[in-house]
Amino acid sequence: MSFQRIAIIGLGLLGGSIGLAVREFLPGASTTGYDQNPETRRRASERGLVNEVYDSAAEAVTQADLVIFCVPPGAMGDAARDIADAVPRSAVISDVGSCKVAVAKALTSELPNNPVIPAHPVAGTENSGPDAGFATLFRQRWCIITPPQDADPTLVARLKDFWEALGAHVELMEAAHHDRVLAVTSHLPHLIAYTIVGTASDLEEVTQSEVIKYSAGGFRDFTRIAASDPTMWRDVFLANKDAVLEMLQRFTEDLTALQRAIRVEDGDTLHDHFTRTRAVRRSIIEQGQDDARPDFGRGDH
Amino acid sequence: MSFQRIAIIGLGLLGGSIGLAVREFLPGASTTGYDQNPETRRRASERGLVNEVYDSAAEAVTQADLVIFCVPPGAMGDAARDIADAVPRSAVISDVGSCKVAVAKALTSELPNNPVIPAHPVAGTENSGPDAGFATLFRQRWCIITPPQDADPTLVARLKDFWEALGAHVELMEAAHHDRVLAVTSHLPHLIAYTIVGTASDLEEVTQSEVIKYSAGGFRDFTRIAASDPTMWRDVFLANKDAVLEMLQRFTEDLTALQRAIRVEDGDTLHDHFTRTRAVRRSIIEQGQDDARPDFGRGDH
Repeated sequence: MSFQRIAIIGLGLLGGSIGLAVREFLPGASTTGYDQNPETRRRASERGLVNEVYDSAAEAVTQADLVIFCVPPGAMGDAARDIADAVPRSAVISDVGSCKVAVAKALTSELPNNPVIPAHPVAGTENSGPDAGFATLFRQRWCIITPPQDADPTLVARLKDFWEALGAHVELMEAAHHDRVLAVTSHLPHLIAYTIVGTASDLEEVTQSEVIKYSAGGFRDFTRIAASDPTMWRDVFLANKDAVLEMLQRFTEDLTALQRAIRVEDGDTLHDHFTRTRAVRRSIIEQGQDDARPDFGRGDH
Repeated sequence: MSFQRIAIIGLGLLGGSIGLAVREFLPGASTTGYDQNPETRRRASERGLVNEVYDSAAEAVTQADLVIFCVPPGAMGDAARDIADAVPRSAVISDVGSCKVAVAKALTSELPNNPVIPAHPVAGTENSGPDAGFATLFRQRWCIITPPQDADPTLVARLKDFWEALGAHVELMEAAHHDRVLAVTSHLPHLIAYTIVGTASDLEEVTQSEVIKYSAGGFRDFTRIAASDPTMWRDVFLANKDAVLEMLQRFTEDLTALQRAIRVEDGDTLHDHFTRTRAVRRSIIEQGQDDARPDFGRGDH
């Protein structure tokens, strides 16, 4: 038995995509939704992101058997509090946040009587807001579910089925391990990208216009993820602070080693390092996690 | 009057693309080519990258009015020496290297009697070798020409016409300034990408398999440019050492500031920084230097 009435709190890129995906891949289920921004609610109605958009979170969840919070990590606690009196005790509470330990804690403490099973679909684009979502966002992407130790296996299996129906591969993981894995595969890359785009913008002798014109030399790849939602990412770094700082420390050590190799003109160290990193790219393409076309298929070769 | 007989030394991604582009966009001109790797010469012949592939660089240039070196920066001097006795004195010597001061010096010192006008098409993909090139690589990309102070303006104009015929926009720039601009728009991003891919590969508690599976969270964007040709990039960092180290110093300062903001949980600083970087992305897209589709159009939304 799958979920039948899904309430989506937060109708941006992720929430909107879940709504559209349910409509397309789980046509028997109905969806309700809420967003704290009235303009987002209006657009969500126009696009039909969910069957019904409500003006309060409490109204949106009264009939739900699954509630998915699609708000920035720092807003999870408040969003959960808003539905505490209205949500049925049997409704499964889940989310799509990038940090699982902090979010699980926030949801569980506000909704102690509901089963809370956090999840994180590792999918997204640099766009945000109610116009950014699309039904196939999760296709071929991984969704990591981080059930608490006392979670009901039946409910975990239902949530797994739900994400698989939306096109995702599902993996179960301990929340703390999830946060360390994502610190390196997602949070650190975003921090680095945000940093380098800022560095390039602040130069005096190289103009902003030059940075933009010659960005095809590599820089532009970084600007994509540095265009992601600022609120979401502020919250991610604060919520997963320890793991991010640890990965950053390792990155800095490695960067210092390459910096030294450049300074002392140790070409062999550079060449060895650059050769090793090619293999990682190959594996990512083989496993269908990126576009194999050169340059991401940007041109029409 | 444009160039009629173009000799291409080095038949990888760049050299091969120039050959294919000349065939398509300058059908009146003829091309000759050489590569020090016999297997590359064989593939270049099969693909028809140039009209005629020779077994020595000297033979390839005997009739040339334009010679373009498409070899890694560190190999430019040796490659130039190989043609010194065979190249006509009137032939313009150019190249496609990512570092202009060092390359100009190497070419000029080996070929003191020829007009040397270095150039750098800011275009490429993560692939390399004789199978990687295509005729439209330079379309809508910038080509920076860095003429020495005493360059003949007529020859500079001819080289400009040549690159425009291949689809590029051309900009003239002083070599030292070029090297600082590219240090930030290309060399630093590659160094950072190579570093983070290495950092992720070396973790113990997060497996290589996890890094690859969950790379869609941001990491995979870095792996593309970290798959670029190791020899080329080793040479770039050695040839443009000073500018790269200076940009790296600024990047490290900025990263340290964001690291501190995370440590002290200064959300406002993070949010302000992340908001500012969005504007850069917008400009790059407006100016046609990147794909406006979300996620580089990887999926079929």
